[in-house]
Amino acid sequence: MGFDRLIEKIKETRNPSVVGLDPKLEYVPEFLIRRFQQEDGCSLKTASRAIYEFNKMIIDEICDIVPAIKPQAAYYEMYGYHGVKALERTIRYAKLKGMFVITDGKRNDIGATMEAYTAAHLGTVMVGENELEPFGADALTVNGYLGSDGINPLLGACKERDKGIFVLVKTSNPSSGELQDQLMDGEPLYAKMGDLCEKWGADTIGKYGYSAVGAVVGATYPEQLKELRERLPHTFFLVPGYGAQGGGAEGVAAAFDENGLGGIVNSSRAIMCAYKKEGCDERDFAKAARREAIRMRDDITAHINLG
Amino acid sequence: MGFDRLIEKIKETRNPSVVGLDPKLEYVPEFLIRRFQQEDGCSLKTASRAIYEFNKMIIDEICDIVPAIKPQAAYYEMYGYHGVKALERTIRYAKLKGMFVITDGKRNDIGATMEAYTAAHLGTVMVGENELEPFGADALTVNGYLGSDGINPLLGACKERDKGIFVLVKTSNPSSGELQDQLMDGEPLYAKMGDLCEKWGADTIGKYGYSAVGAVVGATYPEQLKELRERLPHTFFLVPGYGAQGGGAEGVAAAFDENGLGGIVNSSRAIMCAYKKEGCDERDFAKAARREAIRMRDDITAHINLG
Repeated sequence: MGFDRLIEKIKETRNPSVVGLDPKLEYVPEFLIRRFQQEDGCSLKTASRAIYEFNKMIIDEICDIVPAIKPQAAYYEMYGYHGVKALERTIRYAKLKGMFVITDGKRNDIGATMEAYTAAHLGTVMVGENELEPFGADALTVNGYLGSDGINPLLGACKERDKGIFVLVKTSNPSSGELQDQLMDGEPLYAKMGDLCEKWGADTIGKYGYSAVGAVVGATYPEQLKELRERLPHTFFLVPGYGAQGGGAEGVAAAFDENGLGGIVNSSRAIMCAYKKEGCDERDFAKAARREAIRMRDDITAHINLG
Repeated sequence: MGFDRLIEKIKETRNPSVVGLDPKLEYVPEFLIRRFQQEDGCSLKTASRAIYEFNKMIIDEICDIVPAIKPQAAYYEMYGYHGVKALERTIRYAKLKGMFVITDGKRNDIGATMEAYTAAHLGTVMVGENELEPFGADALTVNGYLGSDGINPLLGACKERDKGIFVLVKTSNPSSGELQDQLMDGEPLYAKMGDLCEKWGADTIGKYGYSAVGAVVGATYPEQLKELRERLPHTFFLVPGYGAQGGGAEGVAAAFDENGLGGIVNSSRAIMCAYKKEGCDERDFAKAARREAIRMRDDITAHINLG
């Protein structure tokens, strides 16, 4: 309950970071693409197979030192249903290797439709007498613009299946303030959304004091990160924007409580493309990803007090 | 440009309605499920094949009288990548039959990721030397909580590929007011989001005066529908909530301008499950869908002045 499983993985690895697997084909080394092109040509199936192999090799290299992965749904949908198959395979493989999986889908809709998204990403569906798990992630990012109706079906999965959600509160992009910073009754929209996270999560608080309803708060806004950490004591933070988007480790430290818990920091491109930055042989991409994951872990843990 | 293609289909069919294809397996007649179960058992593949056949038979019956379909992504994701294959096949088939396709995905993310969603749903991707179209819809529903960064990549597809988007403004669900009705500088959030739609769409206005940036405004809030129609003269409305969710034709009429244009009204379950309500033979489900689509068309057009 309440991200306990994720927190235990973080304590075990002493690493509050998550690797974003957003595998644009241009990030995937040529040798992998060529391998599948020989069989399936320049097709979406080739893209899907190359992406999965890329992810799998990274997971093999990082699963002992990184607690979680965060595949971004957009980069799989980009290759049609074949791409979505790579998402499904990636989730299963990461779970097999003991990692916690956060599907970054930012899904949102009215209640009946959110039941379908919940079943898809965090639950099961029935086909005849068979109960099947379509994607099987541990947590899903969601958008709360529709209010409680769109969140309630997810809370069922949080309670009954020990899953979690991360609601967009203050996003990392430059224009996030256009709406999120605007005042409602004297307080910014992001603070209202944050308060709703505390409310939605109230029945799902786990043994570390955090609920199953987390919040997405960007590393690129360290002041809001600090303000929200104080305001939302039971809300676990998923923090994008470290590294490539410009957020630094000192700022990110504000996401954590006095025990070094309460948040997990994401890095995607810097890890996936570490081999390009290093300039090493592309066949060494997964080891370069591991080196960058270690560098990131050490950078973040140097700024927080992890138990 | 600017929903001209959709508006011309509406004028041609004299029908400003769209059929939502949200095919939960429990909506699909038993005889179709059994047909595929014989080959693939109680699997996600069976679900996908049955759903596609269900959609295809409905499309065959309505494509001459209904301008558009709106598949809801959640009900396909619910059956894993096999389900997403049914979405892809449904979109291609509807387009082959001349229908306008709105993928209801309510996607949203930071700019770089929205480029991926844009390529997925409204654009193309490169694999080697091949340019491929993953889903190929005509329009996509999106959520604007992240501000302009998350919308800009979509505007490229609107301009270069004659596509459209619908931004969530005032949604049809009971809790939509929790955030959307709250005041910012004396005006509700939904009005601010609506104003952004006018701004985002300014460069994409077509010959009927509507831009390629539409808005989702629920039939369940007829007063806001009327207020927003006056406030947003260049914004085309996608109106969910008619029928099953409780919105009536008189209220829905407020979505339209003096020429009977400016909006399209969605119905999903009432059409897909018309055979259940009628109590006819389940093998007659597609003809029952057609009868309900005609009833809906006549109900709506009786309340508006369609040219």
